[in-house]
This record gives sequence, C-alpha cells and structure tokens, in this order.
Amino acid sequence: MGPVNQLVCALLVDQYELTMANAYFQADKHEVPAVFDLFFRKNPFGGEFALFAGLEEVLEYLSNFRFTGEEITYLKQVLPRARRAFYAWLLSLDASKIRVYAQKEGSIVFPRVPLMRVEGPLAVCQLMESAIINLTSYPTLIATNAARMKMAAGKDKQMIEFGLRRAQGPDGAVSASRYSYLGGFEGTSNTLAGKLFDIPVSGTQAHSFIQSFGGLNELPRTTLKDSYGVEREFVELVEQARLTMGYTHTNKSELAAFIAYAQAFPEGFLALVDTYTTLQSGVPNFIAVAMALVDFGYQPIGIRLDSGDLAYFSREARKMFGQVPETYQDEFGNLKIVGSNEINEAILHSLNRQGHEIDIFGVGTNLVTCQAQPSLGCVYKLVQIKGEPRVKISDDPGKTTFPGRKHAYRLVGQQGHFLVDLLLQEGEPAPKPGEPVLCCHPHTERKRILINPSEVIPLDDLVWDGKRVYEPKKLRDIREYAQKQLDSIRDDHLRMMNPTPYKVSLSERLFTHMHELWDSQIPLKKLV
Amino acid sequence: MGPVNQLVCALLVDQYELTMANAYFQADKHEVPAVFDLFFRKNPFGGEFALFAGLEEVLEYLSNFRFTGEEITYLKQVLPRARRAFYAWLLSLDASKIRVYAQKEGSIVFPRVPLMRVEGPLAVCQLMESAIINLTSYPTLIATNAARMKMAAGKDKQMIEFGLRRAQGPDGAVSASRYSYLGGFEGTSNTLAGKLFDIPVSGTQAHSFIQSFGGLNELPRTTLKDSYGVEREFVELVEQARLTMGYTHTNKSELAAFIAYAQAFPEGFLALVDTYTTLQSGVPNFIAVAMALVDFGYQPIGIRLDSGDLAYFSREARKMFGQVPETYQDEFGNLKIVGSNEINEAILHSLNRQGHEIDIFGVGTNLVTCQAQPSLGCVYKLVQIKGEPRVKISDDPGKTTFPGRKHAYRLVGQQGHFLVDLLLQEGEPAPKPGEPVLCCHPHTERKRILINPSEVIPLDDLVWDGKRVYEPKKLRDIREYAQKQLDSIRDDHLRMMNPTPYKVSLSERLFTHMHELWDSQIPLKKLV
Repeated sequence: MGPVNQLVCALLVDQYELTMANAYFQADKHEVPAVFDLFFRKNPFGGEFALFAGLEEVLEYLSNFRFTGEEITYLKQVLPRARRAFYAWLLSLDASKIRVYAQKEGSIVFPRVPLMRVEGPLAVCQLMESAIINLTSYPTLIATNAARMKMAAGKDKQMIEFGLRRAQGPDGAVSASRYSYLGGFEGTSNTLAGKLFDIPVSGTQAHSFIQSFGGLNELPRTTLKDSYGVEREFVELVEQARLTMGYTHTNKSELAAFIAYAQAFPEGFLALVDTYTTLQSGVPNFIAVAMALVDFGYQPIGIRLDSGDLAYFSREARKMFGQVPETYQDEFGNLKIVGSNEINEAILHSLNRQGHEIDIFGVGTNLVTCQAQPSLGCVYKLVQIKGEPRVKISDDPGKTTFPGRKHAYRLVGQQGHFLVDLLLQEGEPAPKPGEPVLCCHPHTERKRILINPSEVIPLDDLVWDGKRVYEPKKLRDIREYAQKQLDSIRDDHLRMMNPTPYKVSLSERLFTHMHELWDSQIPLKKLV
Repeated sequence: MGPVNQLVCALLVDQYELTMANAYFQADKHEVPAVFDLFFRKNPFGGEFALFAGLEEVLEYLSNFRFTGEEITYLKQVLPRARRAFYAWLLSLDASKIRVYAQKEGSIVFPRVPLMRVEGPLAVCQLMESAIINLTSYPTLIATNAARMKMAAGKDKQMIEFGLRRAQGPDGAVSASRYSYLGGFEGTSNTLAGKLFDIPVSGTQAHSFIQSFGGLNELPRTTLKDSYGVEREFVELVEQARLTMGYTHTNKSELAAFIAYAQAFPEGFLALVDTYTTLQSGVPNFIAVAMALVDFGYQPIGIRLDSGDLAYFSREARKMFGQVPETYQDEFGNLKIVGSNEINEAILHSLNRQGHEIDIFGVGTNLVTCQAQPSLGCVYKLVQIKGEPRVKISDDPGKTTFPGRKHAYRLVGQQGHFLVDLLLQEGEPAPKPGEPVLCCHPHTERKRILINPSEVIPLDDLVWDGKRVYEPKKLRDIREYAQKQLDSIRDDHLRMMNPTPYKVSLSERLFTHMHELWDSQIPLKKLV
C-alpha cells in the first residue's frame, strides 16, 4: 500500500538526524540498542485529553523506510565528509531491526504517556524521529479538534469538514479530512479524501454558481421529470408558489440558479441562500423551488447559510419554513439548515447559548489549521540506551522525561470509566483487576492514591516487529473506536470550561527511580 | 515534471465544484466563457504586504489536470444522478481551453489585486477553484511570514527553517521549506526539501545525541586526523584545554558527546550546549573541544542555544569566547551562535531590543504553522461570464469584488519605489511612463490622486494559454526576485508597527462602472 503521500519517505528527515547518525557511526554506537518514547507534554486547546491519530500512516512509513541510491548520491554532496562505509550502511537500512509499541489509533490519550515506543539500533531510531513526529502530531491535533467541535455542536448535529482551500498544503487538506472524520465528523467536501479513505463527501454550490445566472431566460428548459418519471412544466409551478407566498421581490437571477440546480439534483436540492439577501431573497426563492419540488414528489434537502448572524438567520428561516401551506408541512418539517462561515469551537458554544436551528455545520479554516493551537508539539525522547535509562532534565519538572523502558496501563473503575494511566518500570508485574495498586503523582510525593481497578488495559501493543504485526484498520473502525473511547471517560474531563485533569501516575518503583536519577544529574546551581 | 505532491490532481477538489459542474452541464452553461479572479482581501499578520508564491505548482497542476477512469468510476458512486454524458465530458477534460494570467511568483502583492486570472469554460474554471486556492494561499502566507521574520532578525542574520516535525503534514513541511526559502530564509533542516528544491540544508545534533553518551570511556578512539592528515591524540588535548580554562566541573557525558561529534565533523563542529546547564557545562565543554580543534588546524563553527534566555545566554557565551588565550582569538572571533526555541517575529524584535549575540536563527513551529495567522483566506471569484461583468456584493464594501475582466499595473515613482497598483477595465489604454493618470480609491469617491509614473509594470503575465507559456523558474531565481521586490517598496509599508497601507486604486472608468453595478444590485433594506 505505502504512505498516502509519496513525500513520506526515509529522506523526509531533519538533516541533524543524518549528521548524528554519521557521528554515531564513527563512534561505533550506531547499532547500540536504544528506546525512544513519542509523547506530548500538554493537552491541546486548553483541554484535558487528545485523540491519538496517525499510527496507520507511521506503519506505512516504516514499511517503506529505505534510502534509494539517488538519495544517497544527494546526501554525499550534502555531507561530503561522511565515509563510504557510512553510506553503504545507510543504503542497507530498513526497519527490520525496529520494534514499535503503540496505543491504538483513535485512543483517548494523555500527556507524557507514550503514544509510541520505538526500539532498535540507536541511529536507525534516530533517523525516524522527524517523520514519526510529523505523521502523528498534526493528525492527533486535528482529530482532537474535530472531536471537541463535534461535542460542542452536540451529538444530534452533523459536522462536515470544508477545509481543502484553507489547509496548509494539499495533504494538510487530505489529512484534515481523514482525521476529522476519525474525530467524529460525518463527512468532508474533499473528493480526493472521500475516495482515498471512504469518507462520505458532500457539497452543493458556491456563490459563483448563483452569480453565473442572469435570469430565468437563461434556463435552457423549463421542465423537470417528476418522481414518477413524467417530464412536466416546472418553472411555472415555481413562479406560482412564489406568487402564492407573496415573494415577489426576490432576485430572479438567484431564482434561476436554484431552478437550474433543482433540475440537475431534484433529490438533492440544497440551496446557498446568502448570495444576495438571505431573508428577503435567498430563503423565499428556496421555498418557492422547494414547494414545486414537493409537488413533483421530491423531498428537498434544505438551505446553507454562509454569512451573517447564523443563529438569527437559522431561526428566521425555520419560521419561514413553517409558513408554507399545510400540504407542504410534512416535507418542510424535514428540511435541514447547514451553517458555515468561520465556525470554531467557541462559536459553536455561543450558537448554543443563543439558540439556533442549524442541523449541519460546515467547518473549514478553524478546523483544518487548528487556529486555536496550530501544533501539538509531540516529542521523541531517548529514554534508554544499552539497557541503561536516560533522563532529560529540565528546570520545568513537567518537561523532564520519564526514564527507561516502561509499560503503561489504563485502570478502569467500577462504572466503566477510565480512572488513571499508570506507568511501570520494565519488569514490574502488571496491575490486575481487583487488586489495589498504588499510583504516584510524578512530581508531588504526597499525592498518591490506591486504586482497585475493575479492568486493566495495556497501552502498548506491539505493532511493528521488524515488520508490521498489527492488522490494518479501516478508518471507519478507528472512528467507531474513538467514539467509544470518548464515551468511556467522565464528561468533566472533556468539557470546554475548566475540565478536570485526568491522572497520569507512576508506580512507586518508577517514581523512586526517576527521582534518584534526577538527584544524581541535576547540579546545584550557584547564584552569583 | 508534475506537481511535487502526487495528491495534487484534478480530484483534489471540493465536491460542490463537481455538483456545480453537473448543474452547469445540465443547464448547458458548462462551456460558457468565464473569468475568475484569485485574490486575498486582507494582508496577513497585521501587515501591509504579502509575497506571492505557489505559481509554479499551480502550473504543474494545470499540466496534470485530468480525471482518470478510476476517478470517474468513484464519482459515479458519489453522484449517481449525473448523466452519462456529463461523465464522458469530465473524462475528456484537460486545461487546454484555459488561459491563466498571473503576477510573477515572488512578487510583492496587495489585497484585491488579482494574483491570477483564470479564463475559460465556466465549469472547467470552477473545477480548478479548490486546488488553485490551496496551492497559492499557504505558500503566499509562509513566504510572507518568512520575509517578515528575516526583516525582523536583520539582513546580517541567517535564518534556517526547522519546522518539519511541527508542520501540518508532510507537505506542510516540504512547502514550508520551499516557500520560506523563497521569502528570504537561508536554509532548511528538511533534507527532502533540500533535495527537491536545491535549498541549503543544515543540522548538527539533538539532545538525544548528547544524552546517548555516558562518559569519555565510551569513545572508541581518542585520536583525530589534524588538518594536515596526521592522526594524533585528541582527547588529551581537550582535557588539557579544559584544565587550562578551569572548566573542571562540566558534565563529562556531554564532553564525550562533543568530542565524538568533533571526531566525525572536525570541520563542522557546532555543539548543542543546553542539554545539562548552558553556561556551567555546555559552553565550557564546547570551548575545550573547540580549542583542541584549533590546535589541530580546524575552524570550529559554534554553538546552538535551544532553551532559556537566548539574549542573556548568547551574550554570556560570546564573553566566554573572548576569554580564551590570545592564540585562539582569531578562530574564536569567527564563532557563530545559533538560537532556536519558539522563535517568532515578536520575539525577534524583543531580542533586538534586549541586545543579543545570535548570528543564526532556527525557526520551526511559528514559521511553518503561521501561528500568528494560520490561513491567508484567498478567494476565487467569478467576475465575468459570457462577456458580462459580475459583482459579488456584500455588506462590507471591502468584501465586494471588482467586476469584469481587468488589467492591473504597478506605477513606479521617480525614486524607483512602487507607488500604487492600478486596476483598469478591459479596453482602457495602459498607463504610460511620464503621463499623469488618475487613481481612484475603490470606495471613497473623494480620495483620488493623479500620478505621473516613471515606470509602469503590467501585473498580469500570460502564463498558461492552453499549455504552459511561461518559462519554468528556479526557486533560487524566484527568491532573488522576491528580495528585489522587497527592496523596491518604501520601508514604512513593510515595518511591523503601524505600517502604511499601500494604495490599490481603480481607474475612473472602473470606479464608475463598479458603483453603477452596485447600485443596480443592492436592494434597499428595510428595518422593521
């Protein structure tokens, strides 16, 4: 299969990984066994959770991890000082000596619990750093963003990703479609993404379509086949409905565009109503065409609002739908209102407070660029080398890494809710359901809690053992799994305002070990 | 050649372009001649300019614009209602009936002056909307961001793009490298981008490299070839230098890592000095190794600071470089300091105010994600159809489009500075050097200015006329052109604080025409 984007290859690497690899090679350390943890330090968007995404693509990257002869020729120009033997080694590389453990794609994840653990020859693990971070950070960020927006809109609303034109590059767009679907969106406007990942696609028309019509005389025909297949006069019926409703001052060019669209898609009639004036022209013209469609036996779909006060316009439009004659009420009761235009999480909450009648949200810019926080900041840290733990100390305790090869478990409470993610040192026995286990806060010695889990979920599946050992997952299944994950955590961890932090803890042994390592390595600073 | 990213294809399109195309087809309007303008409405980053980028990639997209049989099969599932004849037409499409006029890539550009004008059959132009916006918005945004950062740092500083891991997807990264180089950066850490676009690549080592060493005993050899090729004892010399300087409390693991790196790259020794403590260990260890390298006849490169107070650390490090014995002063006078860690435009200005000793900036997240404004918001608007002008009116006059097929010219003043971009209606004679021309503000009737240009530059080169008619440009040449463009505009348009807006004007004829069209289309609103 290979990566979705052909730019994903071994050469998609920061130059310093190559210079380091060469220095390791010269120091004869390049094949020393090493362990790297991939994790993030802080939840995005001021929240207390993230949804892990990007694993499938990382596995495709590993499958294709190989330098070509042509790439080596290029590297020889860039690093002329490196020896012939280094390049021979580089040319021989693949991911066959690498083992990767990971959380499941679509899992709800928390800071500092490894998303992935990469084990293998030091220099090979190092060469994978840039790509692995790139392939997981943005996917995780956008899946999380999408999940937050979906929650903000409410489960009964449909969310469609509209961001192709606003994304940061072509695969910024394609990834956005893929991972916002994973996060809970219902569809995308991006046709390529729809095809690649089997995501429902949708879309109707733009302002340019409406503007392209000058008037009713531009319609090449005035008829339409009704739902029984009989070709009948349609435009006249629209004009009658318009008269019946007293909508005599609407824009005729817009009316022509709506009719043309209805003629092309009688079963999929959804009209963009804000090209001229929404309530004076767009909605009335829609209603006239929709009434005629109902007469023809079709169920019109609804309208799209793309500017202005979405709460107000949607309420007014719904009222106007209610004003059609009784015989149309059934079909008009099913009409959907799509809202788009600079939607973000805060605006969704604000719309809820105001009261609105929108059924479907189209979200572009703020979803795909993750405006509120455009980067997750995943890191990939060396935690063990030749069996010895390593710790990266920092003035900020939250930035200090957890040393050594570790195992992570999620402890589940009696109500079926996730309670805590617990990290253990290698060799410690796994926690067992029904057996109390001590969970230590990573930095505050006094904060310890005894938990009696009713279920224990390991958080490091072996997914790559020299080759892929993890069954490929379909995006739809990952999406479903992600929804179940979100349902398995208390709402107060998910809410927008002041969410409760989820506990990430260490076993007592790991806690003690880490603090001993710190003490041995942090020099006492002098203030002169 | 084709697009850099294979995801760039005809199917990279918003679904509504396809539904519209089908509706146009059914209404027999699909081949009506149309004109679309691509432009942005507001300069990014609170500034008063942008640098246009992405044209080369758009031309590659046009060269490859074609639906495959497999794609048509997919579309038939998605739009089952569209007729066989529509799909036959879709399968026959290419860009041979399209004409594109554009500003030169690397041009300094302003709001509402078309970046590109796309002309051709209505439905074909429409199908190109999403991809053309995608391929120009982010490139223009990042080129502008890079140019702003380079100006903030100062012309004598080097700027390196470090954003691969923080970018929004793989080609977010590759595009960021490409277009930040265009905007004035000197290099990238992204090896693939270096190879694809012939951009200088650079990189040394990460914290993991430093941490991977336990101590001097891990070095497999203690010698190094000096600049005459003689293999000599090196580690002892480092130890002596360390003693001479009184640096006896530095971290030995870090020292070992520096030595190993110097052994691999004696001519490229640049050390990351903040893994343990910057001024107590990193810089002293660097100095010891650098002195030994000087003894061996090499010029060490310098240090990289990746955390903490960059202004303070860089000044202190420079002071410490000055404390080496006289015989080392020449080489130590050449040392470079690289600063990285969450650099953005505001931080660069702040560092300048504080005083710093950084020579080279590495910029990642805030450059590539354009944190300050993650999307440019280009639009692609229908301005003419079948020879008739179209205008999209809006409550906000700044959002109203300039109708019709237009020509744009840049008027240059006597000092060689760009004065104004002037838009003319089709058929108006072009302004001529030495002949005064009236320039009207688009919305304020009283604001008119008579300009006597000393040079007139047309802003719409024909770049595609059924096929590419524009010579491919190398990235280096585009970059050089962009620098000349930035030099051709007054500094007050470019500055960060309260920049002066650059004038975008209409000819008197276009002004009158536009306002007449408005008046005829804006209905008088009622306040009930």
